[in-house]
Amino acid sequence: MTSNTTNEIDIVRASTSKIDAVDFENLTFGNIFTDHMLICDYKNGAWEKPLIKPYEPFLIDPSAKVFHYGQAIFEGMKAYKDENDAVWLFRPDENHKRFNHSAKRLAMPEIPEEIFINGLHEILKIEKDWVKKGKGNSLYIRPFMIAIGTGVIAQPSTQYRFMIILSPARSYYSGEVKVIIAEHYSRAANGGIGAAKAAGNYSAQFYPTKLANEKGFQQIIWTDDATHTKLEEAGTMNLFFRIKDTLYTAPTSERILDGVTRKSLIEIAKKEGIAVEVRSVLVSELIEASKDGSLMEIFGAGTAAVVNPVVGFSYQDTYYELPKLENSFALLLKEKLTNIQYKIDDDTFGWTVKVK
Amino acid sequence: MTSNTTNEIDIVRASTSKIDAVDFENLTFGNIFTDHMLICDYKNGAWEKPLIKPYEPFLIDPSAKVFHYGQAIFEGMKAYKDENDAVWLFRPDENHKRFNHSAKRLAMPEIPEEIFINGLHEILKIEKDWVKKGKGNSLYIRPFMIAIGTGVIAQPSTQYRFMIILSPARSYYSGEVKVIIAEHYSRAANGGIGAAKAAGNYSAQFYPTKLANEKGFQQIIWTDDATHTKLEEAGTMNLFFRIKDTLYTAPTSERILDGVTRKSLIEIAKKEGIAVEVRSVLVSELIEASKDGSLMEIFGAGTAAVVNPVVGFSYQDTYYELPKLENSFALLLKEKLTNIQYKIDDDTFGWTVKVK
Ligand SMILES: Cc1ncc(COP(=O)(O)O)c(C=O)c1O
Ligand SMILES: Cc1ncc(COP(=O)(O)O)c(C=O)c1O
Repeated sequence: MTSNTTNEIDIVRASTSKIDAVDFENLTFGNIFTDHMLICDYKNGAWEKPLIKPYEPFLIDPSAKVFHYGQAIFEGMKAYKDENDAVWLFRPDENHKRFNHSAKRLAMPEIPEEIFINGLHEILKIEKDWVKKGKGNSLYIRPFMIAIGTGVIAQPSTQYRFMIILSPARSYYSGEVKVIIAEHYSRAANGGIGAAKAAGNYSAQFYPTKLANEKGFQQIIWTDDATHTKLEEAGTMNLFFRIKDTLYTAPTSERILDGVTRKSLIEIAKKEGIAVEVRSVLVSELIEASKDGSLMEIFGAGTAAVVNPVVGFSYQDTYYELPKLENSFALLLKEKLTNIQYKIDDDTFGWTVKVK
Repeated sequence: MTSNTTNEIDIVRASTSKIDAVDFENLTFGNIFTDHMLICDYKNGAWEKPLIKPYEPFLIDPSAKVFHYGQAIFEGMKAYKDENDAVWLFRPDENHKRFNHSAKRLAMPEIPEEIFINGLHEILKIEKDWVKKGKGNSLYIRPFMIAIGTGVIAQPSTQYRFMIILSPARSYYSGEVKVIIAEHYSRAANGGIGAAKAAGNYSAQFYPTKLANEKGFQQIIWTDDATHTKLEEAGTMNLFFRIKDTLYTAPTSERILDGVTRKSLIEIAKKEGIAVEVRSVLVSELIEASKDGSLMEIFGAGTAAVVNPVVGFSYQDTYYELPKLENSFALLLKEKLTNIQYKIDDDTFGWTVKVK
């Protein structure tokens, strides 16, 4: 291992790279990690100097608060390589802002731009060979923070660890996505933490999702927990509903994550002259639109899958199929968005950030 | 370190004990741990043989699912020593049942009695010197399970770790407890995981609790998230309200943890001839009862604090003080319950279990 150091970050390089052992043509999502990770601890009320070092397990106390009280938040973003071998981030400031929003809601310390944003640039410079060219290829980036302070009293930790790990990803055909509308289970409470990217929000969905899977549905469309009448979002995606030629998407709220993909697609759609209405869509509206033939599309939007078209949905044990379209908004918007991300089209929005 | 082994559990003993360095007269809750911990991994669809070994940090991968998706559950229970130096557990079967209920809700594997209950007995035999005699002294027991499988795809883990750690505890005067009734924030959704002892439920409460602390209140009384009209529970305690001479406590539900202390106090109260009604109490009822003088007591009930009387509560920026009583149900019930736990009174309920 060789060591070198920037002003702001200590760097210990791995002596060898694992990259040659990786089959980049056959990646499954999120189970291979690059050679390095960034690690930065918070102690005595301050963030210490970040360290980039070889990816490896770390030691943690059995009483660490993350295990007992779930102080754990994360982000999900991607790096893309253009045809000139430059590496690009997509709206990283949005992820940084959301990370700090999540931190605040879970009584965790916010993280400064110097660590979050500079840390991203530094580790991506080191791992640039892991970002493969070609549309669909990307390096998935997982910044996260956990409470490492010890003790089983139910109080916020005083010590935290921020990390960035990276996993090469490839777009893949996820099969036909059928969804089921939640009638009993919920992912978020009013006044809860649904708008935070908090670890606990995801494990809460696993059991209901397993039940849905057993019935042949890949995802759940969550509804508001009080009445189960409003369509909210899916497991890791915001949702768009196309009725006739208008796109509808629920407003973000305390219960719904403010997705970067969602907000980008709204702007792209508007630019393309597609009518977008940000308002709650009722389950009853969806059923009616399906019955009268005006429901054209449902699709999910999120960093991992970009855009995920839905082929049909189930509600109260009835299955509603969606039409197969020639001119799908989902595919058009996906094309436009990925063309910006991969630097194929001009980025008129100013969303892309080159890795220094 | 010496090793010996029962049929079911491997044991590696610590070469020295930390016990002599511990000031048992001045313990703060949950920050000192005993010499050993129990650890048992779940892999390939089965639980491996448990191991009792010296308490120490362990290695974990940065992509372990507990950090990203919050699959983490726990229990809280206590061991007590009687005057003849025997060590006792209180209704451990209830904690085991609840643990498996939590596991199921978070799509984690259930744990068999041989590991959970036998594990408790084995580690308590080894750590019996850490259980101090005298009312108020106890050994707090923290069984917990975390997802240690790796990978950042939002799916249940296939590998888990179950652990038991132990922390000596002493009853302490927690100061006067003033509470604030939740008007905006919530701890649980309908169809959510509020009834599970899931790590994520606790971090969700830290920020609102911090806001309450800043206003001079130690705890929040959570209300239902849809209407904020029904009184539910506190951070780590179920709640009892005494109006005239009747005790009220909310029914357990998907939103409310089924506390062992609560259910034990209900039975003790009935035996003592105190009227108990299990039904939702409305905020409006509480205010009215406070105004007309019929509200006598509010108290929390949970393993850590046993019974925690409340001196007053705030709602919509008005503070309501509770009367100071000679004959408090809270203190009577606490006395009766702890007399059973410490084997001072006969355990006519059959709740206490002697460590083998
Ligand atoms: C619950 C939830 N909703 C929506 C999204 C989509 O957000 P983004 O577009 O920022 O990836 C995510 C994250 O991927 C999510 O976890
Ligand atoms: C949310 C919550 N409610 C109530 C309780 C009380 O349960 P028990 O009496 O079993 O300790 C606890 C646990 O201590 C809890 O975490």
